[in-house]
Amino acid sequence: MYTLWIANKNYSSWSLRPWILLKTLQIPFEENLCYFENGKSSHEKFQRFSPSGQVPCLIDGNLTIWDSLAICEYVAEDFPQAWPKEKQARAWARCASAEMHSGFTALRQQCPMNITRCEALPEISHELQANLNRLQQLWQEGFDRFGGPWLAGKEFTTVDAFFVPVASRIHSYQLPVNTQAKQWVDNILALPAMQEWQKSASQEPQIEH
Amino acid sequence: MYTLWIANKNYSSWSLRPWILLKTLQIPFEENLCYFENGKSSHEKFQRFSPSGQVPCLIDGNLTIWDSLAICEYVAEDFPQAWPKEKQARAWARCASAEMHSGFTALRQQCPMNITRCEALPEISHELQANLNRLQQLWQEGFDRFGGPWLAGKEFTTVDAFFVPVASRIHSYQLPVNTQAKQWVDNILALPAMQEWQKSASQEPQIEH
Repeated sequence: MYTLWIANKNYSSWSLRPWILLKTLQIPFEENLCYFENGKSSHEKFQRFSPSGQVPCLIDGNLTIWDSLAICEYVAEDFPQAWPKEKQARAWARCASAEMHSGFTALRQQCPMNITRCEALPEISHELQANLNRLQQLWQEGFDRFGGPWLAGKEFTTVDAFFVPVASRIHSYQLPVNTQAKQWVDNILALPAMQEWQKSASQEPQIEH
Repeated sequence: MYTLWIANKNYSSWSLRPWILLKTLQIPFEENLCYFENGKSSHEKFQRFSPSGQVPCLIDGNLTIWDSLAICEYVAEDFPQAWPKEKQARAWARCASAEMHSGFTALRQQCPMNITRCEALPEISHELQANLNRLQQLWQEGFDRFGGPWLAGKEFTTVDAFFVPVASRIHSYQLPVNTQAKQWVDNILALPAMQEWQKSASQEPQIEH
């Protein structure tokens, strides 16, 4: 059975991605939570199980997979439903996931994931608005090409998992998005796995106010 | 046949990754080069062929694959030699490639790829040194586990392609690395495909001094 190392459910957006994929696809795993260090780097602490000193990190027997996207690709080798079945949708889903993996910097920096927060941003910067525009364009392309309700078609796959923390941010910071994007955000927030994650997050002792 | 959109061979490190993978694996493709705009954003110009406004971008019939890592995964579906054959090496190679895809920020920002440059950095910042330490640790793990001469074993695969621009930076900025890392850098720089890229780069009219 897989073991997935994650950090604070309130703050660790990267942990949430493979966690919610495994949960939603009903792939069994053991969860190991290691909290961020309060006010100092967690790098050394996380290096005890993750060679890059970062979370998430998946352990499968004697194998260690220490990056969120590599975890999803690794899981997909045994559980192909982690990507869309159809070649075009799979190629699109991989592009969108990879774009999230290396991009959307303003959104990540200006709206860090904070599950228990619910308060509008005082203002939307130019860079953040550009990220929101690109997000909506990207998601719309997915809905138009693959028919929804998920980003790449009828099934929840890795590309949805990769944007789950964005759904949380849109909710927490009350970011303005169009109706179809908002509907997808609502679908994500209603997932049983997301409800479970949010509940655990709200009970964590390490909530910063 | 694939078409690969790339930008300036002197500067576009992301373009180099899939380009050198295709060349080295002798996978046929047509190359389309679109220069960066001089002094302003190339986003709009690149959007004519790439939905994110970024390069590289692979076209295969009616499919557009607009991220470097997604391109390599897409190619690997038809040419499995793009990843190591053995499961453990493949998992490791995917982690290392993904870590490069989203990380090594100081190295990328402080030593942007500049093929024709050959001049030592006046000083190595703390963040850059941390990146170099991690690089050497990561590569060493690859050599120790999979036996070299390439990062994940006997064959050149996507993980080597992902670090090719780093080899170029180590050369251009004369960055200090250990003997085994230096040997890998020399192997990369000696690849026929790399020689071809460097030659074209040196003939580009858009070289900034």
